[in-house]
Amino acid sequence: MPETDSVFETAVLLVDCPDRKGILAAIADFIYLHGGNVLHADQHQDNKRGLFFMRIEWDLKDFDLDRKSFQEQFEPIARDFQIDWQLELSRDIPSVAIFVSKYQHCLVDLLYRHQIGELKCKIPLIISNHPDAQVVAGHYGIPYHHVPVEKGHKQEAESAQVELLRQHSVDLVVLARYMQVLSGDFVSAYPRRIINVHHSFLPAFSGAQPYRAAFERGVKLIGATSHYVTEVLDDGPIIEQDVVRISHRDQVEDLTQKGRDLERMVLARAVRWHMDHRILCYGNKSVIFD
Amino acid sequence: MPETDSVFETAVLLVDCPDRKGILAAIADFIYLHGGNVLHADQHQDNKRGLFFMRIEWDLKDFDLDRKSFQEQFEPIARDFQIDWQLELSRDIPSVAIFVSKYQHCLVDLLYRHQIGELKCKIPLIISNHPDAQVVAGHYGIPYHHVPVEKGHKQEAESAQVELLRQHSVDLVVLARYMQVLSGDFVSAYPRRIINVHHSFLPAFSGAQPYRAAFERGVKLIGATSHYVTEVLDDGPIIEQDVVRISHRDQVEDLTQKGRDLERMVLARAVRWHMDHRILCYGNKSVIFD
Amino acid sequence: MPETDSVFETAVLLVDCPDRKGILAAIADFIYLHGGNVLHADQHQDNKRGLFFMRIEWDLKDFDLDRKSFQEQFEPIARDFQIDWQLELSRDIPSVAIFVSKYQHCLVDLLYRHQIGELKCKIPLIISNHPDAQVVAGHYGIPYHHVPVEKGHKQEAESAQVELLRQHSVDLVVLARYMQVLSGDFVSAYPRRIINVHHSFLPAFSGAQPYRAAFERGVKLIGATSHYVTEVLDDGPIIEQDVVRISHRDQVEDLTQKGRDLERMVLARAVRWHMDHRILCYGNKSVIFD
Amino acid sequence: MPETDSVFETAVLLVDCPDRKGILAAIADFIYLHGGNVLHADQHQDNKRGLFFMRIEWDLKDFDLDRKSFQEQFEPIARDFQIDWQLELSRDIPSVAIFVSKYQHCLVDLLYRHQIGELKCKIPLIISNHPDAQVVAGHYGIPYHHVPVEKGHKQEAESAQVELLRQHSVDLVVLARYMQVLSGDFVSAYPRRIINVHHSFLPAFSGAQPYRAAFERGVKLIGATSHYVTEVLDDGPIIEQDVVRISHRDQVEDLTQKGRDLERMVLARAVRWHMDHRILCYGNKSVIFD
Repeated sequence: MPETDSVFETAVLLVDCPDRKGILAAIADFIYLHGGNVLHADQHQDNKRGLFFMRIEWDLKDFDLDRKSFQEQFEPIARDFQIDWQLELSRDIPSVAIFVSKYQHCLVDLLYRHQIGELKCKIPLIISNHPDAQVVAGHYGIPYHHVPVEKGHKQEAESAQVELLRQHSVDLVVLARYMQVLSGDFVSAYPRRIINVHHSFLPAFSGAQPYRAAFERGVKLIGATSHYVTEVLDDGPIIEQDVVRISHRDQVEDLTQKGRDLERMVLARAVRWHMDHRILCYGNKSVIFD
Repeated sequence: MPETDSVFETAVLLVDCPDRKGILAAIADFIYLHGGNVLHADQHQDNKRGLFFMRIEWDLKDFDLDRKSFQEQFEPIARDFQIDWQLELSRDIPSVAIFVSKYQHCLVDLLYRHQIGELKCKIPLIISNHPDAQVVAGHYGIPYHHVPVEKGHKQEAESAQVELLRQHSVDLVVLARYMQVLSGDFVSAYPRRIINVHHSFLPAFSGAQPYRAAFERGVKLIGATSHYVTEVLDDGPIIEQDVVRISHRDQVEDLTQKGRDLERMVLARAVRWHMDHRILCYGNKSVIFD
Repeated sequence: MPETDSVFETAVLLVDCPDRKGILAAIADFIYLHGGNVLHADQHQDNKRGLFFMRIEWDLKDFDLDRKSFQEQFEPIARDFQIDWQLELSRDIPSVAIFVSKYQHCLVDLLYRHQIGELKCKIPLIISNHPDAQVVAGHYGIPYHHVPVEKGHKQEAESAQVELLRQHSVDLVVLARYMQVLSGDFVSAYPRRIINVHHSFLPAFSGAQPYRAAFERGVKLIGATSHYVTEVLDDGPIIEQDVVRISHRDQVEDLTQKGRDLERMVLARAVRWHMDHRILCYGNKSVIFD
Repeated sequence: MPETDSVFETAVLLVDCPDRKGILAAIADFIYLHGGNVLHADQHQDNKRGLFFMRIEWDLKDFDLDRKSFQEQFEPIARDFQIDWQLELSRDIPSVAIFVSKYQHCLVDLLYRHQIGELKCKIPLIISNHPDAQVVAGHYGIPYHHVPVEKGHKQEAESAQVELLRQHSVDLVVLARYMQVLSGDFVSAYPRRIINVHHSFLPAFSGAQPYRAAFERGVKLIGATSHYVTEVLDDGPIIEQDVVRISHRDQVEDLTQKGRDLERMVLARAVRWHMDHRILCYGNKSVIFD
């Protein structure tokens, strides 16, 4: 994907509406008439359901609308085509909270990518139910909040977590091998804004101990899956998956080791695509505009 | 894998026994003392269960035992180490029956590989519940048996099939997208000698219409799995799996098309490994000596 | 990729021009005003060179222009934006000639894909410098022309070949492991209309005997590359590449065997993309609109 | 690969000799007679050159020889079969020096793997021609030596580097994107003990700026290669390679980003296999006993 964001200020419009003739023309015209130079446009139709999806990105240099006037001017088109839309500006850097438990490989990976500029976001805080990752957080200069989750007191813990997220105006929650199941209340407060990584190629081996289950079944590939969290465990829209080959020589520990590399790549891609506004969900599936 | 089979006459010994000191030495000595030059030796231990598995292949040029005298001479060692063993000679070309229904891509693929020498076997017959593949069978010069499987009359069909397999002394049955479920009786007559290809990365999407199920779930990779058939549907020891990337643009028909390439490769590898005596099963898992 | 072609009659417009504001709007408007419903639109900019590329596909059901009137009406826009364009209609089924030498795996693969409807084209002829593939051609009902290429007489052979291509109004030439180098004259008669498969991941191991060269170098992956043929051997725009893992146990023959599967997949994808008008070339590179 | 090293004390014997009957028997007997329980044995023949290679690993629990007596007792067998051998004990933890320049992704990756126990080695020092990685080294508690390499003064720098390696009894040098070419003198002081990662699928794009070269050529896959360093740049025995898919949308910066993930995995695998004594080289190729 082109690195235009680093050069220009750009806007991304995500569009979700019933399919109808003229949508592309209407939107392309609108952007052109207001001085925008389209950098990328990608669309997708679901013919069976009659749905239209689009991601369109343009250079803001000569664009004559700000966010507020865009809303006013675009509204008639949106109404006409029944468009569900979302405007994102490259200058609005999202705030990301990372949740972690004891395994730190995904956390370390995300923090390093952030440090070298691969992830264009702020990370105002890390939240963990364990104190272990404090040192790593310190090395990368990110405030660390230890919120223990004790049996029977998950609700208090979640209240504390949500309060922290609100204080820091968090846009996206990344579960970097966070081993607690979030409640429905928590999940519904951040719809399509919580990304998890599960260490199997879902839907195979959902739930606990997927590497052990994969070992027992004798599969020849293991996988990892990043997905949006919904109220049903391991069932949200899949964003990215990848696999690696294993053999009979690999024990559960070897699967765990090989899987770590998968997990961190699959999670990092999902986080990057989310922040680049490349993901649209409908039903329980994702469209990735790459 | 080296192409030694095409050059030398060789023997392969497959060994399955409790792990104990001295097994490798005993077997290596035995082969050496009888004039065999070991070409490959590969072993595997399952430490938790205390099991030992080995595949050892040697040049028969100066080897002074035939099959019968091998049995007599090796028996004391086998008894001592409680070895479950199997001796295979490269000169014994196996007889393979291919079962097919309407989709012919796996059949066509296997027949072409056989024609150019990739699969060192005889294919004395093709059995199908449909007449469709008759033309292809004719092109490759393989006798074709149309055995319809009518509702409520599966048993008669299977009797006819098994009779055909016996007449042709079939060693291996390959289900090349054969869409009928075999009965427990049929399966138990050919233990570890029926290979199926299922069009998903098992255990995900077992059962009917896996491409549709994969599409509905919104996975980002689809797979295919070759496995030995056991009495439980889609549950036998997995031999090989592979995957290919898909996107939201791919409809069920696209998954089906991309999957065909996976299916034929994954099935062909399994058949080749079986015929090269590279597969040992224990529990419900396979060891692939590659 | 969606299977819309099989359902609708569609048109594809391929666009190549200097990047400038308003191109997308101008083209989307044009299609909309003439009654077309855009099914896919994908664009690409080369920012450094200031170039714009687009593939746009629309439903022809209510479209009010035929090819001739399209040309007339679109011309002003094309002139204004300096657009190099190409209009393709799904009803125009291309004619493909397959060239083959002795290795038939790519040929067999293409013919089977064609038979089951994966490749939407006519194959009016197969041309070979050897008689070997005659039987396969016969099985699939394709006329076979044996045009020997004798040392010092390549020019005569090529004249005969080109004459055959003209007689059959061939749109695309597929070199399915055709082992003769085509002359510059031949190549320039079919610019961007000759697809070859080379059995290495170019630019590594260009030229003769790539599997042997890969074996000698001790690489851990082997590849295959499909590309448009240009006057410089193995140097044309790459369309598709893929690789497979090998090990020290694999001899040259094993590489050759593993490579066959790569070659046929990599070639088939290129042919399909070409026929779906998904490929635009500029400089020596390809844009694949997937 | 099984995690036996973490449980047992083991020995690994690497064997390289002319192929002859009885080698396996002789070595298996020897180990058995001295009380060793073989855990893994893997052999490879190069039939064309008549060479035999083996890696054999055994449990030391009841083994009755120490390193010195092994040498004495094994010598007659070694002489008889002209065996070039190497004995490695799992208790001997190797010392690894990491060289780095400005790009730290491979360094960070190796240090994290080391921290969590994936790499069973000591890392007594990091050497760099830049001061940049000092902070990371400090976080992981590894002494950092800044040895500038100034134009025309490479020899002095290398003397200082080699002196440091000697002081710390370094067994293996890992070039984690170290951007200086080592002299022949340096290389020959550490034969088969310097591992480099090159950011292309060698032999394609050897030399400087491989991502730019890959971009210019328009390849559809980019790769990374880990290899032993020899006196010829980018030409030593390849240990591991991997690739990732790119598209026309990827600019040089995107290749660089995608490549970082490849580089660190391909380098980490090579380092692990080296430390597990899984690599034997002959000619300019590697045998990986996996």
